Amino acid sequence: MSVKHLVLLSGGLDSTVMLAHIKDQYPEDAVTCVTINYGQKHHKEIDLALKIAAYYKCNSFCIPLAELFNSFNSALLMSNNKEIQNTLERGEVGNTYVPFRNGIFLSVLAGLADSHEYKGLWYGAHAEDASNYPDCSKKFYNTMKDAIFFGTANNIVLTAPWINMYKAEIVAKGRALKVPFGMTWSCYNGREKACGVCPTCKGRLEAFKANGIVDPLVYVGAI
Amino acid sequence: MSVKHLVLLSGGLDSTVMLAHIKDQYPEDAVTCVTINYGQKHHKEIDLALKIAAYYKCNSFCIPLAELFNSFNSALLMSNNKEIQNTLERGEVGNTYVPFRNGIFLSVLAGLADSHEYKGLWYGAHAEDASNYPDCSKKFYNTMKDAIFFGTANNIVLTAPWINMYKAEIVAKGRALKVPFGMTWSCYNGREKACGVCPTCKGRLEAFKANGIVDPLVYVGAI
Repeated sequence: MSVKHLVLLSGGLDSTVMLAHIKDQYPEDAVTCVTINYGQKHHKEIDLALKIAAYYKCNSFCIPLAELFNSFNSALLMSNNKEIQNTLERGEVGNTYVPFRNGIFLSVLAGLADSHEYKGLWYGAHAEDASNYPDCSKKFYNTMKDAIFFGTANNIVLTAPWINMYKAEIVAKGRALKVPFGMTWSCYNGREKACGVCPTCKGRLEAFKANGIVDPLVYVGAI
Repeated sequence: MSVKHLVLLSGGLDSTVMLAHIKDQYPEDAVTCVTINYGQKHHKEIDLALKIAAYYKCNSFCIPLAELFNSFNSALLMSNNKEIQNTLERGEVGNTYVPFRNGIFLSVLAGLADSHEYKGLWYGAHAEDASNYPDCSKKFYNTMKDAIFFGTANNIVLTAPWINMYKAEIVAKGRALKVPFGMTWSCYNGREKACGVCPTCKGRLEAFKANGIVDPLVYVGAI
């Protein structure tokens, strides 16, 4: 029986490879992508997420939640003047953490999914994010998965397929699935070129390096 | 050490008695009440919640989420033309269920709490609601409590003090705490007088009857 899937698509590498994976695994199923405007400092990710959804022939929409996040404490937000922290120690919750962001996003998607006969709900948290972002940890995922299942009368099933995987493995998976990596955006800064020095740029560059391939994204300083 | 508490206050009986209980248990602590406008068919509850917070000398605010819930499927919503279902069988999820509403509310409050140095987060789900509202069940509460704790790096602690209690016990508790029951509103209809026949009116009337006291709220048909 065909199932409807709701995918949290940020426009980043992890969620894009996840979308490719879902389309590959369930070619007959309907997949809808949801991107959230939570007042992040740039719109680049959001614009790309909608383009990526179109590339994969999926319906997509953006939920405007910027006002809700207005008083949240995070350097990623437009409402916040803090400089983005470029170094994160292992286990440190830095100023790029947006308090309980994934909890909010997944709850909103669970409510929408339960309203419109979806069954599957997906998000792209992976093992490397867990150390600095508590709402990407395995403990959070396992308990949130249960909260969503029980809170929707055993209806909505949350899956985070990369929860035990490192970013290099996700790049390998994406390469096998012919993901257009150049369409994805990871950098915390929304300039024309990726900065190459923020925590997500660094993680992304290392993951490509580990695979012995070049990231097609254009970085500052590249020729 | 003094702790800051964030309380989900609907303006109904259960959350109001909970607020009285928190103020009684932690007289030195700061308590802030949050009410959510999710596009419910009437504003009566919201107005009363703000008045109840003032009665208990608490700061309070209302979060506007009506737009977000616009496409949700529930007879309680203004965006939905369904008649409110007056009879609920045990274990039935009726049309007054708002998909994953408490998951969304609690996630939003967890993010706010984690942004502003709160520690305690409270909501008033009770044992009788669990049968018809999956997001009031003990299973949901236990897993959501863990998801919030882990997702905020072991920071925010969710408590639902009535999770094992019946409504009659909450009325008894409220009576002992001298709660102004007449200020609270439970009816699904926002008319001048409570209807007396919707599921929450029925539950409320039975709870007062079990305590041998009269509900000070004015009901349709009362003299």
